Amino acid sequence: MIKTDEVTLTNFQWPTGYYNDGIEMGLGVSDKLDFGYLVSEVPASAAGTYTTNKFQAAPTKLTKNTINQDHQLQAVVMNSACANSCTGKQGEQNALTEQKLMSEKLGIDLNLVGVASTGLIGAQLPMDKVTAGIEKLSPHHDDNVTKAVMTTDKKPKQACVQIKMGGKTVTITGFAKGSGMIHPKMATMLGFVTTDAGIDGELLQQTLSQNVDTTFNQITVDGDTSTNDMVVVMANGMAGAPKLASTDDADFSIFQAGLHLVLQELAKQIAADGEGATKLVECNVEGAFSDLEGQEVAKAIVGSNLVKAAIFGQDPNWGRIISTIGMTNAHVDIEHVDIEVNGIKMVEDSLGLPFDQQAASDSMGANKVVIDVNLHVGSASGQAWGCDLTYNYVKINASYHT
Amino acid sequence: MIKTDEVTLTNFQWPTGYYNDGIEMGLGVSDKLDFGYLVSEVPASAAGTYTTNKFQAAPTKLTKNTINQDHQLQAVVMNSACANSCTGKQGEQNALTEQKLMSEKLGIDLNLVGVASTGLIGAQLPMDKVTAGIEKLSPHHDDNVTKAVMTTDKKPKQACVQIKMGGKTVTITGFAKGSGMIHPKMATMLGFVTTDAGIDGELLQQTLSQNVDTTFNQITVDGDTSTNDMVVVMANGMAGAPKLASTDDADFSIFQAGLHLVLQELAKQIAADGEGATKLVECNVEGAFSDLEGQEVAKAIVGSNLVKAAIFGQDPNWGRIISTIGMTNAHVDIEHVDIEVNGIKMVEDSLGLPFDQQAASDSMGANKVVIDVNLHVGSASGQAWGCDLTYNYVKINASYHT
Repeated sequence: MIKTDEVTLTNFQWPTGYYNDGIEMGLGVSDKLDFGYLVSEVPASAAGTYTTNKFQAAPTKLTKNTINQDHQLQAVVMNSACANSCTGKQGEQNALTEQKLMSEKLGIDLNLVGVASTGLIGAQLPMDKVTAGIEKLSPHHDDNVTKAVMTTDKKPKQACVQIKMGGKTVTITGFAKGSGMIHPKMATMLGFVTTDAGIDGELLQQTLSQNVDTTFNQITVDGDTSTNDMVVVMANGMAGAPKLASTDDADFSIFQAGLHLVLQELAKQIAADGEGATKLVECNVEGAFSDLEGQEVAKAIVGSNLVKAAIFGQDPNWGRIISTIGMTNAHVDIEHVDIEVNGIKMVEDSLGLPFDQQAASDSMGANKVVIDVNLHVGSASGQAWGCDLTYNYVKINASYHT
Repeated sequence: MIKTDEVTLTNFQWPTGYYNDGIEMGLGVSDKLDFGYLVSEVPASAAGTYTTNKFQAAPTKLTKNTINQDHQLQAVVMNSACANSCTGKQGEQNALTEQKLMSEKLGIDLNLVGVASTGLIGAQLPMDKVTAGIEKLSPHHDDNVTKAVMTTDKKPKQACVQIKMGGKTVTITGFAKGSGMIHPKMATMLGFVTTDAGIDGELLQQTLSQNVDTTFNQITVDGDTSTNDMVVVMANGMAGAPKLASTDDADFSIFQAGLHLVLQELAKQIAADGEGATKLVECNVEGAFSDLEGQEVAKAIVGSNLVKAAIFGQDPNWGRIISTIGMTNAHVDIEHVDIEVNGIKMVEDSLGLPFDQQAASDSMGANKVVIDVNLHVGSASGQAWGCDLTYNYVKINASYHT
């Protein structure tokens, strides 16, 4: 696990050399910002991770191909309300047109522009509105782009870290949209991280992929992977710190710790704001055979509908937790599993302990429930984050379309 | 797939030579039958399939070991309200005591008695009530045992088929309890099938395992596998038909068709009566690379929370279906997937078709929703059954414990 002790979160601000905009173009039915862009004043090193869903949406494919050319990006244009997914050749053409219009507006190379969409699957982008939207965008330093990508999100997800690299202050700032269809396998929903650190593009890609595995890929809201999931990082070097070229560089570990914390914080905010959620559920697994198995068990627990519903109902029903552990492929010593919920020990050596049911239930009324599991088979660990399963999750997803 | 065209369901009745009882012993809080037995007048060939959960409950382990000795059984004693799971050595001792008391009452060998429990994980069986219950049980030919195993089930699951074997009428009768924690991997919840056919025990085991794979193992309510899942078949030969000894026997295929239909019917009843469910969801996948992949895709679709919530809301949001297909490991021709819901074609060649949204929504108000998918990569197929995700699922599972 990455040590993030040396870095702390700070108030939202953009790194040097980035501007954004978020506007309302009426792409969806609701009265909200739905179109925006994020721009670096100079070309930035860029990296991305993308959905593993076979039906990858047109914008996701295009941005992946664009970034993979030379790991550079200067701008991303993005919208909510329409995912431009399962839209065939027309959808691919629309994503290309959007990319082209944005590159012309900014006067930059086509392959410095990424595109991102989220929302309903199967509908085509209304290109007249997209065209008008691109014309209307103008440079701002507020946080409206973080609101423009929201769908059923109740609030924008933002995280900011500042670190020192070579005596310079470097800022790493991320935002994301989440809510439903969240059970990433490789990448996830829409996440964007900007930094004024300088770092080689390939190294940035490698660092992002590793850190997404233990952050964004360890959250689940409903077990479903979207066709549009994507996390993009841009690093424009404008803080003036020495450019990172290798994991051996003096400042690499502090940069990685900062990036990890931003990704983890965004991941937790997405889980806490899962569709219909009333609380964040965090699971820490110790004593695992390997970190991968620790992560598998942690994610299975926060992903179980029965565990999630019990947490919504403040029901300290640990049988559902141990049953979920038994469903995984991880090594388990079936006679020596320990379980704590919010610090209350409920299971020792796989047997229920007497505990104050009412006190346990009351503690589960908080907006965060922490489940600690010890598998007692090794010394590895894993973490995952999710949310409770509520009436509102069902309500939101029973009527999203109409 | 097994052809079941030659066999049809008939009204509930026990095969020759079986009796049962179901009584109320106050094992749980609710005012319902919670204890019972099922007995054959003579030792029967027996077979079982059992949960793959690592935390296998004491009664499940004991019954598995008992049946595996020589594939014979004469009686099963069963209870709801308490699962006797994660109960350690005490739980194992209690299951053994229950088995012993039942064998003494019936004057039969210990290893002719199976035990089955379902309900809350972690609580010990109240052995005073179990002892009194065993004393109180008496032979009946009603269907009370099918009610005694119910937990949150709204109604008992029963299925009966009659076939001709060697000129004799053979009856195959099954019952099951389901509702929540239903996502079997090998076996599932509690299911019992009795028949007066004669069949070799090992052959019965082989036939059961094969047919459970395409019936009980193809239903899902919430993705969770119980610690107590078990399907047991007893065949006492009392119909007087020739005893089956090989799959080459003349009547083997009709017996298998009958068994398959009973298992499939019970599986569908369990799915339709999933916790909080308002409707049965059936998914038929054609054009799959293999039957296994067809089954995987079908089960993924009926298991998706987003699909299930959309069906509850009568929302013809096919994007969630195609997205779920893309999440599986099955071979998919991503440009040529077709999807129909209740006979209304919504997707052709992976693109949305215009269709009457209101008519589609109205049709989804029925108590059965059928999703037909063609993957166009091969000629194999698969089926799965599930239910919608409703407010009541959350309600039931948020407050089951207390």
